[in-house]
Amino acid sequence: MEKEGIYPFTVEAYLTDFRGKATLAMIGNCLIHAASQHASSRGFGFGDMAGRHTAWVLSRLAIELQVYPRAGERLVVRTWISEVGRLATHRCFELSDGEGRIFGYARSTWAAIDLESRRPTLLDAPALNPYLSDRLCPIEPPMKIQPVEQGSPEETFRVRYSDLDINGHLNSMKYIEHFLDLFGREEFEAHDITRLDIAYQAEGRYGMELRLFRRETAEGHFALAACCGEKSICRAAVRWG
Amino acid sequence: MEKEGIYPFTVEAYLTDFRGKATLAMIGNCLIHAASQHASSRGFGFGDMAGRHTAWVLSRLAIELQVYPRAGERLVVRTWISEVGRLATHRCFELSDGEGRIFGYARSTWAAIDLESRRPTLLDAPALNPYLSDRLCPIEPPMKIQPVEQGSPEETFRVRYSDLDINGHLNSMKYIEHFLDLFGREEFEAHDITRLDIAYQAEGRYGMELRLFRRETAEGHFALAACCGEKSICRAAVRWG
Repeated sequence: MEKEGIYPFTVEAYLTDFRGKATLAMIGNCLIHAASQHASSRGFGFGDMAGRHTAWVLSRLAIELQVYPRAGERLVVRTWISEVGRLATHRCFELSDGEGRIFGYARSTWAAIDLESRRPTLLDAPALNPYLSDRLCPIEPPMKIQPVEQGSPEETFRVRYSDLDINGHLNSMKYIEHFLDLFGREEFEAHDITRLDIAYQAEGRYGMELRLFRRETAEGHFALAACCGEKSICRAAVRWG
Repeated sequence: MEKEGIYPFTVEAYLTDFRGKATLAMIGNCLIHAASQHASSRGFGFGDMAGRHTAWVLSRLAIELQVYPRAGERLVVRTWISEVGRLATHRCFELSDGEGRIFGYARSTWAAIDLESRRPTLLDAPALNPYLSDRLCPIEPPMKIQPVEQGSPEETFRVRYSDLDINGHLNSMKYIEHFLDLFGREEFEAHDITRLDIAYQAEGRYGMELRLFRRETAEGHFALAACCGEKSICRAAVRWG
C-alpha cells in the first residue's frame, strides 16, 4: 500500500457558493473524506479505531488556496501522514485540478480520544508508522490564533439538530460555515479567502448558546472565536487575498 | 440510453446526524445529484439548459422513508421522468440499500426558468419526451401544505453567505435544515420523520429576515412555513413515524 492516497472529486453545482466556487466547508469535507478513506484502507480508519474504543478527532486545520475550484471542475486531493506523535498525528494534503495543476495545500492535526472518557489516548504508532512519509508540505503549519473574545459578540447562535455530527457535537465544517457567515456577501464578491486556520478546542454540544467574535488583526486578516460563556471552544483565522 | 438512471452513494460518517443516520438534507442532495447526472447524460442537464439561457428549478419535493440509511451503508438512487408538461416535469426516485432492498421513494416537480427574467419558460419537450417512463411511483405526489403563518414565529434567521446557492438564492437543502432545526434533539431520539413535503414558492435572497412557523396539524404531523414579511416563500410538512 502506497504511503500517499489520491482521491478525486467533482465540484457539484448544487454545492457551490453564489459565485459558483467550492466553499471552504465543502473543500474541508473533501479533505475529511480523503483522510478517512486513506486511514481505513490502511487499517487505522473509523471502524478500526471504534474497535479499540477510540475515535479520531480533528484538532487543527489550515487550508491555503491560490484559486477556488468552480462548479463542474475536478478537485483532486492527495494526502499523506507527515508526523506521528504520542497523542497526535499530522496529515498533509495537496489540492490539484483535473490537469494536475496544484492550487492549494492543507495541513491538519488529529488526536485519538477514548470513546468513554472523551480524553486523549495514546496513538497506535505501530499501525501508523509504516505510512509515515517524508514528503514536505510547503505551507505553514496550523497557526496560533489570538484571542478576540472581548466586548459584544458579532452574533450568537444556538447549536441545533442540523449542526450535530455523529458524535453528537457541533460538526467541524459547521463551525466554518458559522464563522464565514460573519462576513458579508460583498466581501466574497470582492475577493477570496486565501488561508483559513481553525483550532477545535472543546466540543460544541446541543443547545449551547455560542457567541461569535471577529476582529481584524491586520489588513485583511481576521481572528475569530466561538465562545460558550467566557470559554472559547473554537478559534479561527482567515486571510483575505 | 436507458430511461432510468442508477446512482450509488455511500453514507459517509462525517455527513450523518448525531444518530449516525443520513440527514434529509444529505438524502435530498443525493436526489439532486442523481437528477442532475440523469439529465446531463441525456442532453437536458445544467449545461444544456444554460445554453438556452434557462435553468432547472426544483419547485416541489416529497420524500418517504421507511428506514434511514446509516454511516457506512450504501444508498442507491434510481430516477426516472414520470410526466412532461408545458412548464413542469415530474421526476420520481426509488431509494434502496446495497442489497436491493427498497426503503423509500421520492417525487419531485421541476420548472424551467429563463435566466434573465427569472420567469417560468416552456420546456424543451422534444428533448425530454424520449425519456418519459411509464413506471409508477407508489407514494403520494407532493401535497398541498396548509398555511401556518400566524401569531409569532418559532424562530427568525437572516439569509447569509453559507445559505446561498449558485444562483444566489437560499439553497433548497438549507431550507430543510432550518425547518428541521425547529424540532428538538429528543424528537429525533424518539422517532424518525417518515415523510417530508416541501414547496419552494419564491426565491430566498441574501440578507432576507425569514420568520419560521410551525404548527402541529394532526398527531405527529407538522406544517411549516418560511416567510419574508407576510409572504410565505417556502412551505413544508413533516410526518413523524
